[in-house]
Amino acid sequence: MKELLERIQTEGVVIGDSILKVDSFLNHQIEPSFILKIGREIADRFSGERITKVLTIEASGIAVAMAVGLALGVKVVFAKKGHASTQTGDIYTAPVYSFTRQEEVNIFVSSKFLTPHDAVLIVDDFLAHGQALKALVDIVRQAGSVLVGAGIVIEKQFQGGRESLQESRIRIESLATIKSMREGKIEFA
Amino acid sequence: MKELLERIQTEGVVIGDSILKVDSFLNHQIEPSFILKIGREIADRFSGERITKVLTIEASGIAVAMAVGLALGVKVVFAKKGHASTQTGDIYTAPVYSFTRQEEVNIFVSSKFLTPHDAVLIVDDFLAHGQALKALVDIVRQAGSVLVGAGIVIEKQFQGGRESLQESRIRIESLATIKSMREGKIEFA
Repeated sequence: MKELLERIQTEGVVIGDSILKVDSFLNHQIEPSFILKIGREIADRFSGERITKVLTIEASGIAVAMAVGLALGVKVVFAKKGHASTQTGDIYTAPVYSFTRQEEVNIFVSSKFLTPHDAVLIVDDFLAHGQALKALVDIVRQAGSVLVGAGIVIEKQFQGGRESLQESRIRIESLATIKSMREGKIEFA
Repeated sequence: MKELLERIQTEGVVIGDSILKVDSFLNHQIEPSFILKIGREIADRFSGERITKVLTIEASGIAVAMAVGLALGVKVVFAKKGHASTQTGDIYTAPVYSFTRQEEVNIFVSSKFLTPHDAVLIVDDFLAHGQALKALVDIVRQAGSVLVGAGIVIEKQFQGGRESLQESRIRIESLATIKSMREGKIEFA
């Protein structure tokens, strides 16, 4: 997706060799019409598949997931972090380790919103080490739903998330794949 | 907004006298096309106003804020919780006490995304005690932006958020206003 690659190149800020900040259009500020385009592109990559639900994780995934849900005409579920006191009933839960924040959090999804009748497309803003995606895959399995695949906006290939998910045989489609960010230079695959 | 009131009445789950769960369409699962309608309605309430940016707080506010941003054709900024290690540069920050989670968290917005040239509409899913809204108002003031008002999906009037914000003279538009939830019965104002 050309416009995405250009914006990553011009607006992205590389910190160290592994952190990419795209706060100006994806993670802190968003341009809704651009997010819609991203959502349509992810939906297109999975056209022909039967998808009944989009699953993401709060917070940065929500806008993109909503755009994919709009394009597909299906509901969007976002896995929540922690365990709010308002949560009642059966839940599916999985741990996620965040390398950026250096902490483990639990995410959960109410069993009401994912069932064995669902065919689920996971959507997220980043694929780095694959921790969040692994937890979402785990939740889809717990629910007994069909896992259609994962649509990712930016994949940082050099952090190995895709390989670490190989045994789950999940189809992963990334709109932008970054091979390296050495010396602050973003190189696409 | 009739459809919203109906869904709150049929799908909302009241816990105790003050917690309302609308997980099936607003806070955990969303129906993107319905969220678009909510966004359009909030945008309509402020038609005629010059708005350059929508401001919300992660996580549940993001979907609705994106819908408002789409309707208005402006960018959306979401205040982030905590202080990620990727955050650099100047920020505006304010504390928010969550009665639901019984903890205080700091929220922050990068100074790059709110400036004195901006006219800001705050958007959030709930107005209860007004803690989150107060913090967002504080951040708009710190940025020196013009505060146009706040568009809220569900206001729980009996928790006094609107009164607690009276001195800020902010215009608040709520699509659904709940007067009482005593004995599990939702009464609209």
